[in-house]
Amino acid sequence: MTASPRACAVVGLSLFAAPLSAAPICAQTEGLDPTEIDRLAAVQEEAAIQTFREFLRLPNDAHFPDDLNRVIQWLERAFAERGFATRRLPTSGSDLLLAERPAPGATRTALVYLQADGQPVDPSAWDQGSPWEPVLKARGEGGGWQAIPWERLHAGAAAERDPEWRIFGRSASDSKGPVVQFLTAMGALDAAGIPPTVHLKVIVDTEEELGSPPLPEAVECFREDLAADMLVIFDGPPHASGRPTLSFGARGIATITLTVYGPRAPQHSGHYGNYVPNPAIRLARILASMKDEHGRVTIPGYYDGVTLDEKTRAMLAQVPDDESAIQGAMGFGGADSVAGTLQEALQYPSLNVRGLRAGWVGEQARTIIPSEATAEIDIRLVRESEPDGLIRSIRQHVEGLGYHLIDAVPTAEDRLRHPRLARFEHQVSYRAFRTDFDSEPGRWLYAALTNLFGEEPIRIRTMGGSIPIAPFVSALEVPAVIVPTVNPDNNQHSPNENLRLGDFLGGLRIMIAVLTQPLRDAAPSGNGG
Amino acid sequence: MTASPRACAVVGLSLFAAPLSAAPICAQTEGLDPTEIDRLAAVQEEAAIQTFREFLRLPNDAHFPDDLNRVIQWLERAFAERGFATRRLPTSGSDLLLAERPAPGATRTALVYLQADGQPVDPSAWDQGSPWEPVLKARGEGGGWQAIPWERLHAGAAAERDPEWRIFGRSASDSKGPVVQFLTAMGALDAAGIPPTVHLKVIVDTEEELGSPPLPEAVECFREDLAADMLVIFDGPPHASGRPTLSFGARGIATITLTVYGPRAPQHSGHYGNYVPNPAIRLARILASMKDEHGRVTIPGYYDGVTLDEKTRAMLAQVPDDESAIQGAMGFGGADSVAGTLQEALQYPSLNVRGLRAGWVGEQARTIIPSEATAEIDIRLVRESEPDGLIRSIRQHVEGLGYHLIDAVPTAEDRLRHPRLARFEHQVSYRAFRTDFDSEPGRWLYAALTNLFGEEPIRIRTMGGSIPIAPFVSALEVPAVIVPTVNPDNNQHSPNENLRLGDFLGGLRIMIAVLTQPLRDAAPSGNGG
Repeated sequence: MTASPRACAVVGLSLFAAPLSAAPICAQTEGLDPTEIDRLAAVQEEAAIQTFREFLRLPNDAHFPDDLNRVIQWLERAFAERGFATRRLPTSGSDLLLAERPAPGATRTALVYLQADGQPVDPSAWDQGSPWEPVLKARGEGGGWQAIPWERLHAGAAAERDPEWRIFGRSASDSKGPVVQFLTAMGALDAAGIPPTVHLKVIVDTEEELGSPPLPEAVECFREDLAADMLVIFDGPPHASGRPTLSFGARGIATITLTVYGPRAPQHSGHYGNYVPNPAIRLARILASMKDEHGRVTIPGYYDGVTLDEKTRAMLAQVPDDESAIQGAMGFGGADSVAGTLQEALQYPSLNVRGLRAGWVGEQARTIIPSEATAEIDIRLVRESEPDGLIRSIRQHVEGLGYHLIDAVPTAEDRLRHPRLARFEHQVSYRAFRTDFDSEPGRWLYAALTNLFGEEPIRIRTMGGSIPIAPFVSALEVPAVIVPTVNPDNNQHSPNENLRLGDFLGGLRIMIAVLTQPLRDAAPSGNGG
Repeated sequence: MTASPRACAVVGLSLFAAPLSAAPICAQTEGLDPTEIDRLAAVQEEAAIQTFREFLRLPNDAHFPDDLNRVIQWLERAFAERGFATRRLPTSGSDLLLAERPAPGATRTALVYLQADGQPVDPSAWDQGSPWEPVLKARGEGGGWQAIPWERLHAGAAAERDPEWRIFGRSASDSKGPVVQFLTAMGALDAAGIPPTVHLKVIVDTEEELGSPPLPEAVECFREDLAADMLVIFDGPPHASGRPTLSFGARGIATITLTVYGPRAPQHSGHYGNYVPNPAIRLARILASMKDEHGRVTIPGYYDGVTLDEKTRAMLAQVPDDESAIQGAMGFGGADSVAGTLQEALQYPSLNVRGLRAGWVGEQARTIIPSEATAEIDIRLVRESEPDGLIRSIRQHVEGLGYHLIDAVPTAEDRLRHPRLARFEHQVSYRAFRTDFDSEPGRWLYAALTNLFGEEPIRIRTMGGSIPIAPFVSALEVPAVIVPTVNPDNNQHSPNENLRLGDFLGGLRIMIAVLTQPLRDAAPSGNGG
């Protein structure tokens, strides 16, 4: 899916008039003392929780534009109250929100990504009255979650704020939590009279759960408005170990649907077995020819450009994956050996058969030669992958096996003319992105988290999954880093989504640490290339 | 599935006391003149149709024992009226019916197989009031079938009996038609005072549509009662060309269900693609390793013992298959090349992937690594195939690829201990059978049909499909030949089952020809070995 040219909407508004200050002011040269960060955060916790409850009450499923508009209005007010100039960026879908605030003495501009919309809800599947009325819960003696009064948070006794308590509601973690963490962090700085160390632009996505189609479009239409030195994405959970994490990239994704044709209708396997070609075994032969027994793709050029030198492998080895625990939990006795470790394997494009279908199995099995056999394939792309080239190499590989490839249901003539006939359809959804560890935001954020926690954060070179923000990152052409601030077990996209109180308040501290971390004294600390 | 020993029921009845006559009577040395056969049949047509209508009204789904019992009672009376001694053979399922009638001057005994039970019905899917109330139909101008009055058959004007008219009702072709053809043929011989050329035993199957489990059991318990020189099976339609046909064998069938295990639950293909083993691609590799690109099985020994010499291939070539028409009708542009022709291909055991399932496809596709992948395989066996040996060779082949095979859901320990883990389950349903063309019944029936039609019948060496009578044939250890007497397009097993009037009355003539054909002057006419 390549971006098609769009007609950009003309925006006549001139609301945003605050110029970025260029006046030199004494800049900090080191991050704030962690105890100072904690103090700044602690006095805001009460307000943070109140704001979060209020924001969680606003339905934000982007399928309902009126709901989404109320969310944007709430954000416009919230950002304005914190000194941001806001404007809506019209797109062919929902409006995006852009909020901007210059920082005295700053020399760099960070574009911050936040997300306003949320997944649809099925209220009947939630263990609370409404997904839109947040509930504070603690684990009961039996291990289940039980509602507790909000007053226990608001009695003024911070000691009562058990970090294991959780706030349940749609979008608690994905991603209203990060929005409120950010707004609160700004409030904390303002209360203490500390300016952020960077000029801030905040882009608020309003269709993330629909795949963020407006984002790359906005770059086309509002490139100047979105111009920045870096992109900081506050989203998602940290590494499974729970340790502070920075993610420097994500694999992209493309998909292929491959259908091999046999007879027009299923045929009796007795009358015609050994004679009528079987599309299931033919599909199996095609798929088998693509990978070796270790799970490595054997199509020439598939891994071209991907090299992991000693230094890179050492960096990847710092991620504390417990592979034995992963295998035990998932129930398999040996991983594919595309590369030496999980982190190394994620640096390569994948070729995954996500679905197979031919004839019937189990109780429905019948003695037929199936009429067709389908494989659904997904390909996770890495920065080195040229998506169209990868797809083309797979296509050529199948053609090299003697198949005539079509992109629609075959005609009678197709069937008779081509002894080997298959339908090949593909889509490139997102490309991969990857930012060097040693990039400016990489060094800056690394320094901020190291300062706050007193230890190095985990740095993920490439996340295995694919995220809708990738085309936005590619279009912006600035280094982008993901800063996660919510718990991994948050039931994202599912009923009973929640945000752990410890992560909510911890993420607030991460954001204060980031926003107060000087940029220019961050030392190089490794190269993600 | 090997036959397990059964306790045979003790049958105290002594109804059947008519001794087989051994008295020498002038035996015919040639078959009746075809015009004489036609004359004998013509005078019985009125009665045949009346009997058929009456018999078709009896529901015969073996799931309803009371219905089936009324069918057996009707048959007991019908056979008794034609000079047969009848008795029921009790089995662990339905009673079978054995009817016996000696023939003066005969030196051979033919066991005739007929079938009493029928497929279940869904009356709502039939284009008539009830599947149990037969309807006579003719093609209307628009091509559809339209009911016409039975009186047009019974007005005495044989010219009105258009062979294209059809009698619609459950079991019309499968297989009450052959039953009534046989009963009528006996009546025709009796009316003309012509004795059959063989001693007759008739075994009436009552659970064919359930797979005929009582038949091999009956051989164990009533071997002496069933003793005969040959088995003649009146069942099914002729070759697709519609020409008179004899079938000398049928492939057997065994099935395998092979499930390859990946992670215990589906895993995110982004987070774990290239790492968590994918059972779909592994299954594809297993299946692909079993056959070459021409559809031939590559497992050593799979085709052992199957050799088609020049003479056999010449015999097979006499079957007038229009392979170009078959491929055009079925919509594929080139057959597997296990052997040179369809008939040759059917002489080999097959290995057919009848179903594949892993993850999801189409609208349901999701980006996961599936937890398991299943292939349903059926194997059509030929006479040379030792079923357990074939299954074992496949099993060993999979093990040779490094798989640990289990026959139940894997335990957590299985999963961790065996990097390649699969479930392998199999069942041998029926073995194949094949009778030599040059066997005594082969020569006899060939002579009878050649005499009747003035041309050689098509002889099918091995039918591709598998039939429940096969274990009965194997247990009896006598040469068996199938004599088809119904139209190929009879909607067998489906709504609107029918028997073409021309085939109903033609089959009557076939049976008269067979029952009056002398045995001993039949000349050798080819070898089916």
